[in-house]
Amino acid sequence: MRQMNEPPVGKPERARTGLSRRGLFGLAGAGVAGVAIGGASVGAVVSGGGATNAAGVSTAYPFFGAHQAGITTPAQDRLHFAAFDLSATTSRDDLIALLKDWSFAAARMTQGQDVSESGAVNGSPLAPPDDTGEALNLPASGLTITIGFGPTLFTTDDGVDRFGIASKKPALLASLPRFSGDALKPGNGGGDLCIQACADDPQVAVHAIRNLTRIAFGRASIRWSQLGFGRTSSTSTSQVTPRNLFGFKDGTANIKAEDPMTVNDQVWVGTDDAAWLAGGSYLVTRKIRMIIEAWDRVMLGEQEKVIGRSKGEGAPLSGGTEFSPVDLEAEGAAGQPLIDSNAHVRLAHSSMTKGSQLLRRGYNFVDGNDELGRLDAGLFFISFQRSPQQFIDVQSSLSRDALNEYVKHVSSGVFAIPPGAASGSYVGATLFG
Amino acid sequence: MRQMNEPPVGKPERARTGLSRRGLFGLAGAGVAGVAIGGASVGAVVSGGGATNAAGVSTAYPFFGAHQAGITTPAQDRLHFAAFDLSATTSRDDLIALLKDWSFAAARMTQGQDVSESGAVNGSPLAPPDDTGEALNLPASGLTITIGFGPTLFTTDDGVDRFGIASKKPALLASLPRFSGDALKPGNGGGDLCIQACADDPQVAVHAIRNLTRIAFGRASIRWSQLGFGRTSSTSTSQVTPRNLFGFKDGTANIKAEDPMTVNDQVWVGTDDAAWLAGGSYLVTRKIRMIIEAWDRVMLGEQEKVIGRSKGEGAPLSGGTEFSPVDLEAEGAAGQPLIDSNAHVRLAHSSMTKGSQLLRRGYNFVDGNDELGRLDAGLFFISFQRSPQQFIDVQSSLSRDALNEYVKHVSSGVFAIPPGAASGSYVGATLFG
Repeated sequence: MRQMNEPPVGKPERARTGLSRRGLFGLAGAGVAGVAIGGASVGAVVSGGGATNAAGVSTAYPFFGAHQAGITTPAQDRLHFAAFDLSATTSRDDLIALLKDWSFAAARMTQGQDVSESGAVNGSPLAPPDDTGEALNLPASGLTITIGFGPTLFTTDDGVDRFGIASKKPALLASLPRFSGDALKPGNGGGDLCIQACADDPQVAVHAIRNLTRIAFGRASIRWSQLGFGRTSSTSTSQVTPRNLFGFKDGTANIKAEDPMTVNDQVWVGTDDAAWLAGGSYLVTRKIRMIIEAWDRVMLGEQEKVIGRSKGEGAPLSGGTEFSPVDLEAEGAAGQPLIDSNAHVRLAHSSMTKGSQLLRRGYNFVDGNDELGRLDAGLFFISFQRSPQQFIDVQSSLSRDALNEYVKHVSSGVFAIPPGAASGSYVGATLFG
Repeated sequence: MRQMNEPPVGKPERARTGLSRRGLFGLAGAGVAGVAIGGASVGAVVSGGGATNAAGVSTAYPFFGAHQAGITTPAQDRLHFAAFDLSATTSRDDLIALLKDWSFAAARMTQGQDVSESGAVNGSPLAPPDDTGEALNLPASGLTITIGFGPTLFTTDDGVDRFGIASKKPALLASLPRFSGDALKPGNGGGDLCIQACADDPQVAVHAIRNLTRIAFGRASIRWSQLGFGRTSSTSTSQVTPRNLFGFKDGTANIKAEDPMTVNDQVWVGTDDAAWLAGGSYLVTRKIRMIIEAWDRVMLGEQEKVIGRSKGEGAPLSGGTEFSPVDLEAEGAAGQPLIDSNAHVRLAHSSMTKGSQLLRRGYNFVDGNDELGRLDAGLFFISFQRSPQQFIDVQSSLSRDALNEYVKHVSSGVFAIPPGAASGSYVGATLFG
């Protein structure tokens, strides 16, 4: 349960200095904000830990660490993602203060605590509560909060260096090229900053984005956002492979946390990129609208041919069971390839993508319905990789994907994901420190 | 687990006659559809039952019974609601066939089965699958499917009796009057038919609405729809009271299934209404957008005064703990009422609503964000009552509610909820039989 009346485990004296309301809302001028929390006080909540709910034990993941959580963390069931623009400030101090405030609140919320010591109900009755309260009494629910920096944070589209960090922009951090099948809607992608909130309880994920949005008031505001209700990838061998809205298992061949060699090779930025980004990653988001009505009219055999796997088991059509390797050379009795030349699994196979692999972490979405009574549904694709080029390699190979007839990409985003914050520091400290 | 390769428990010979694809999609002319399934075959799936998932036992509620499920059923965590218009047919046979097809598929899905025997993967590879497949391997997850009839099903707004049922329209079934604070968006409410799908797994609720929408093809299409991620009411004393997006516990004083006298008195239609509706209910939906940014700036003491309860415990300001009765007469030391004259709990109290009570079953929603970067969030209010007048009584009393400053109602719907289908029959049989 949220430990509202108990001091955090660890260093209660420091934690009690907490986050002032001024810091939270920046109402008194943003210059004050960063000062109020300081580096050290953030660390005090690290050791606040696991939470238990009525149904059993709920997981709490540490916010601080070498890498940010929410990447190799076993994919939680629900998502609330938001991209922000720093529309209300051009002050470097404001940006740093915002990142400190976000880190402070994120460190608390991921441990099942309110955003500050006074939280939702322990403050003055004569002041607005620091925390909006809808997650009171809910456990941490596996919440992770992952913060990223878009290309425009470093240089606006007009070339302006608002925050004095243009020189530190990673060479790889740039909007993605146009792909065949792109139908991007203006204003529905990109962003100066992003936050990925994943949790096993959607109320906890929504609470996190809502409160981090509130904390950003006067500095940044939401540019676009997305809820996802069902994960479409496993990132751990301990997880069952979920299904996307085409009804197929998704993410069978995903990079798994239990394969650290591939994770290091494909996910974490090394020493060959901007120094401040070492131990970080790149995040790509693609909102993929599925034309589900058309797909639903395709015969089962054709659906399986398009994907290259069986619908039930998820086994490659070259034979075996779900986790059998895909044999791209396998042929049927008549000499025809068992995996079609345009099948999704063939074109996404690392042998077709210059060896590039992605750690996928996407979610199913339904955003109501369109005016024709069709569900506005699809896949909110998320991938992490050590270079956006990996995504470009994969997506370029998929340009001949038979699946393209049933999808269109309506939003695109790319963000640099800083390494995790050291205890007592904040996400982005390596950039500004 | 979905019992895809096993015959349903009970009467497998009959179940095997199952639902033909023709029946499912009405592609071959809707007149065929009802014939294909007949009454008796529907009953065969009743006894298919409980399902178990990796995490433990998952609940399966019977579809057939005296009342429809999804009313006094303990409120599940997630919602997908859809309203439909019969835009593509004026045939009474089509309507009856649709209700039979929906009942057939609903009876199966609520037991964790695919929509038909051949389902997602057991049909011909040369035909589109009957089931879209995204709930394969998922347990029933407490799914309930509740079907309702809007006023326009009986008579269009132009007075047309499309289906020969105008004479059976209940006198109470009419669009709600305009209330203060209404900001209804055209086309965003009402509907000829509705389906409420509730489940503890959103993928299961979405799967249900998607497949029932697909089954309706050529007969009805979605008019509007809504996903909800967190329940805002308990309908059983066994449930913890959840919180709405104002951060307050919601539904503390809700009607609970364990109080059958109140349920009978307030929820189920008796013999004093249309005969075909006895054992049914009326469903009211109100999409209530919350102005959460304004609310979040209100001081804690004022928030509690507006609601009339404490934010943490949810106790009435007249004293006690969460479930203490609200004492509307209690006064403070200075003689002031402890429950403010415009407090929400006062105006919603049955002493202020001519004794009318509601069984509430609402959900929190976030539909992304608006163009100003504010979360498009609120409460999708659902209530069941034996007469829409009860809702009108309550909502009229709430016209002076201090909370109105922070909400606006953007969608409204009212539906007659037929009684449950007898085993081997379908929802609506009492109307058409």
